[in-house]
Amino acid sequence: MFMKREDIEKRILECIEKSKKYKEVGEVASYIPELSNVDKDAFALSIVTTSGDIYNFGESEKIFSVQSISKIFTLIMALKDNTIEEVFSKVGTEPTKYEFNSLIPIEQRAANPFINAGAITTTSMIFGKNKEEKFERVIELIDEMSQGGNFSFMEDIYKSEISTTDRNRAIAYYLKSKNIFDQNADEVLDLYVRICAIGANVETLARFGAVLANEGFDIDSSNLIIPQNIVQMTIAQMASCGMYETSGEYLMKVGIPSKSGVGGGILGVVPNKCGICVYSPRLDKSGNSVVGKNLLKILSADLGLNIFL
Amino acid sequence: MFMKREDIEKRILECIEKSKKYKEVGEVASYIPELSNVDKDAFALSIVTTSGDIYNFGESEKIFSVQSISKIFTLIMALKDNTIEEVFSKVGTEPTKYEFNSLIPIEQRAANPFINAGAITTTSMIFGKNKEEKFERVIELIDEMSQGGNFSFMEDIYKSEISTTDRNRAIAYYLKSKNIFDQNADEVLDLYVRICAIGANVETLARFGAVLANEGFDIDSSNLIIPQNIVQMTIAQMASCGMYETSGEYLMKVGIPSKSGVGGGILGVVPNKCGICVYSPRLDKSGNSVVGKNLLKILSADLGLNIFL
Amino acid sequence: MFMKREDIEKRILECIEKSKKYKEVGEVASYIPELSNVDKDAFALSIVTTSGDIYNFGESEKIFSVQSISKIFTLIMALKDNTIEEVFSKVGTEPTKYEFNSLIPIEQRAANPFINAGAITTTSMIFGKNKEEKFERVIELIDEMSQGGNFSFMEDIYKSEISTTDRNRAIAYYLKSKNIFDQNADEVLDLYVRICAIGANVETLARFGAVLANEGFDIDSSNLIIPQNIVQMTIAQMASCGMYETSGEYLMKVGIPSKSGVGGGILGVVPNKCGICVYSPRLDKSGNSVVGKNLLKILSADLGLNIFL
Amino acid sequence: MFMKREDIEKRILECIEKSKKYKEVGEVASYIPELSNVDKDAFALSIVTTSGDIYNFGESEKIFSVQSISKIFTLIMALKDNTIEEVFSKVGTEPTKYEFNSLIPIEQRAANPFINAGAITTTSMIFGKNKEEKFERVIELIDEMSQGGNFSFMEDIYKSEISTTDRNRAIAYYLKSKNIFDQNADEVLDLYVRICAIGANVETLARFGAVLANEGFDIDSSNLIIPQNIVQMTIAQMASCGMYETSGEYLMKVGIPSKSGVGGGILGVVPNKCGICVYSPRLDKSGNSVVGKNLLKILSADLGLNIFL
Repeated sequence: MFMKREDIEKRILECIEKSKKYKEVGEVASYIPELSNVDKDAFALSIVTTSGDIYNFGESEKIFSVQSISKIFTLIMALKDNTIEEVFSKVGTEPTKYEFNSLIPIEQRAANPFINAGAITTTSMIFGKNKEEKFERVIELIDEMSQGGNFSFMEDIYKSEISTTDRNRAIAYYLKSKNIFDQNADEVLDLYVRICAIGANVETLARFGAVLANEGFDIDSSNLIIPQNIVQMTIAQMASCGMYETSGEYLMKVGIPSKSGVGGGILGVVPNKCGICVYSPRLDKSGNSVVGKNLLKILSADLGLNIFL
Repeated sequence: MFMKREDIEKRILECIEKSKKYKEVGEVASYIPELSNVDKDAFALSIVTTSGDIYNFGESEKIFSVQSISKIFTLIMALKDNTIEEVFSKVGTEPTKYEFNSLIPIEQRAANPFINAGAITTTSMIFGKNKEEKFERVIELIDEMSQGGNFSFMEDIYKSEISTTDRNRAIAYYLKSKNIFDQNADEVLDLYVRICAIGANVETLARFGAVLANEGFDIDSSNLIIPQNIVQMTIAQMASCGMYETSGEYLMKVGIPSKSGVGGGILGVVPNKCGICVYSPRLDKSGNSVVGKNLLKILSADLGLNIFL
Repeated sequence: MFMKREDIEKRILECIEKSKKYKEVGEVASYIPELSNVDKDAFALSIVTTSGDIYNFGESEKIFSVQSISKIFTLIMALKDNTIEEVFSKVGTEPTKYEFNSLIPIEQRAANPFINAGAITTTSMIFGKNKEEKFERVIELIDEMSQGGNFSFMEDIYKSEISTTDRNRAIAYYLKSKNIFDQNADEVLDLYVRICAIGANVETLARFGAVLANEGFDIDSSNLIIPQNIVQMTIAQMASCGMYETSGEYLMKVGIPSKSGVGGGILGVVPNKCGICVYSPRLDKSGNSVVGKNLLKILSADLGLNIFL
Repeated sequence: MFMKREDIEKRILECIEKSKKYKEVGEVASYIPELSNVDKDAFALSIVTTSGDIYNFGESEKIFSVQSISKIFTLIMALKDNTIEEVFSKVGTEPTKYEFNSLIPIEQRAANPFINAGAITTTSMIFGKNKEEKFERVIELIDEMSQGGNFSFMEDIYKSEISTTDRNRAIAYYLKSKNIFDQNADEVLDLYVRICAIGANVETLARFGAVLANEGFDIDSSNLIIPQNIVQMTIAQMASCGMYETSGEYLMKVGIPSKSGVGGGILGVVPNKCGICVYSPRLDKSGNSVVGKNLLKILSADLGLNIFL
């Protein structure tokens, strides 16, 4: 990407143009009722490089529900608050062919931290004297990583999900019955749903990704925010397990470690290059943004972001 | 790695020293009787950089059975001889929690090209008018990729495996019964076992890996040997599925796309940097070389080879 | 059994004697804390014939927790209150290899009405304007079937189970998330746990079984209590699925359709002959009374109760 | 059935009449090419009572391929030639939800003797110095059980199946790879396919069933042909596992222990009453004769043959 800013912008715009043919494909998430109340045609893209350049396109100020992208926050918090051995004694590291909200991939423990069962597990490992303090600590992480980004708690999303989340409640009680955690299952679930209901804009998330791409160092100050081993593990899990049951195919076609959310966002991390976040709420049947994954594939090829080339 | 050759050598030697504490751990493969007739304490390492530097240590001339490392050869051949769509309509792209010779992860098709069922599938997709010609074409690929490396057909290994390979024969007939291929199942199996019985030394395999690391270009001549999209897919599948049911954990801890074989070899590819091959025949219970995986972890951290940092 | 009463008693006593070698084998259920507070060596047997003869042995007046034997009550209630098609659209009819409290055998629906998931499903199909009325109707069924037997609600067992039943709560929420029922999952679970906490003595349960053995007719009055098709289906499900993951083996060795409970009881039904209930609280690892299953095997052979001979 | 012969015949004819509404439903087996060359509308019924009465209807002399009904023969042979413990250490006793030719229900061993994997296992346990002698011994069993019935080896069926039986060959090699048997897998498979290719008419099979219904005693001579414990186990396994993945539902609706074959036959055993065989080649998707299972249900209700009433 040793190009002039305007040339890079032009190429990104061409990529966006190519991705438009997917814009009518897929359905907005409806399993959380409130999630369906979005503009189906909304679109935003942000790329934040490790050298501090920011490229924003579309409705880059729009705040949307991060949903499963928050599984990155939770994993990082669990790894900061516990030893690596503790975390991975309670949650696995391997992808699974089952859908994100399945109970099947919980045998001794959840398959990995990026399916619901795994993220409920890592949520239970966040330190704090009560759920308010734990939630506050997650917010602080996002604030620090995004250098004061634009994000908020989306109470309507939270209320809508907490009242309909039977499957996740089943998962929480199942994990508790397997002694994965000792706490009250309803409390752990509540914190999990709150974290999923965080809203952010694409730039905020791309900034978060850029810090991961930058080996955990703040882009501006170069202060170390996250230890290198946590950075490396988080990106590796994004590569292996970030796109649900299509993680292997996505990595093969796109080559950017990424995590998607049913709110319509996908956050990608290209080590030593950039964080990228796309927002477009129509989803494929695995729960990944259709425009999002296709635009990431086009950008990867066009801007040379594939980590395997 | 912008260091003097002697400094690099010194650091690698220190890494090898650290890995010695694992040298008594694990068992040599015995399920193919002939495989157990090896020097348990053998060790070799080769690193071939994309700039053409070669670092060899230990018994770097010793030829050993590549076994499942050959699944890389077979995947590349299948992708060269067929369209990507054809290949991945017959074999999946996702890792599986089941052991390498299980029949369970074959539902519509084998889970991925790096378990036995998947490699038998890709073997069936290699072009040639008979199995001799097909085998010869695989040999030519290795020869070209390794610029005339040192390798051979290990007939004793072949004979030992073909007479005891009941599980793989079951897999071959199962795939045929699912119409994954039309050919004679015994013939496909025979070719598969022949390819597994290829022997090579670490440098030959590291050269092969270096071409993948070099986006498919020959190291010396810069001729394109393998199309970029095949390179990218092959390395991505190594990252996702290369270390059997521990692929996610390995990627998280080591951060180098790799493929292991029960012969005791592990081949790693670090894009734009190098191919690395370690040989040490004692295996963990998933079938991965114990010294191999640990040395790769140490090298990754020490030489900065982790693709996520 | 065309023998004099005293000869029959003598033979039964001999059978009991033979079963004593198993009396130290197995462990009392502990997963519900209160269940472990029982006399480990307690023993009782009751046989009630369709001609009205009653044979009681041991502590035949002792009331014990019926636990999963209640799955028979619940199935009968569901079949009385709904059409057969409705019931078996929501719960399956096939045995499963998974343990009784697993979530795995719930795919479209629970595998059968005699694992926890299936019994929670049938519980949700009992009619009544609230859970008190529903519970009362189950009590009335037992009262009618046992002609005023000796049974009660064991509140300590209920309290102990309801506060520790994380797995069953997970199952209830999972079923609700699959739209198996619309009601409040906690309410359905509460009713399920209440029904499991019913206590009865062996004669009461053997009388219940005798009515099933008598094609649904009251033993004394010959009034029809349960329609024949419900009787036949209930006994058939006991034969197929009554002893959890060892149902096939038990049917093969014992030949008496039976249902066990982790409280230590087993209720068997021999069509046209008798109901039999054994109580002995030490369990095998599948949750079946060790003395119970062995005594039933001995009685089956000795008294000619095997339905296949 | 204490009725005059002509009244019984009249009632059976009425049952047959009622079953005719199913006669266009289902498809003839085609996975063995030769099996599809049958008269789709063929129909035959035979009931042989333990008192020696024989009721034949339709094309009762027509010989058809017994296919999986032969799994009864094989199980009996294995139980005669080995101890019960030996047999059930190599094959399980529990039904499975998977289709008859699946490899999934083979974990430590095949789920039960009435799926293909289980019957290949029991086939490997038949004694004899070579496969001809083993086959001859099976033939002798059928001859003795049916008192010189009408049956033969259908060579066209054998040849058609042996050349297309990839799935079963996969199963045979898989079992061998798990050390379930030591013999040559192709030889065991050949014997298995030969036994499946036995042809018989309905009366022959109903006579066979009548001996089982008669506790193993010959109907005419009252000589004991099969030990009682083998009789009881065989009928019990028919009850639990005889109708593939619908065994539980069939037992619940029909109440007659039965075994079906994809040739279109179903053999039922009503202890102390009769053997029943229906032939009608159109199958449901589980591989059971549609007219067969429905006629058995009607006969069960109408003639009082349900073992649970």
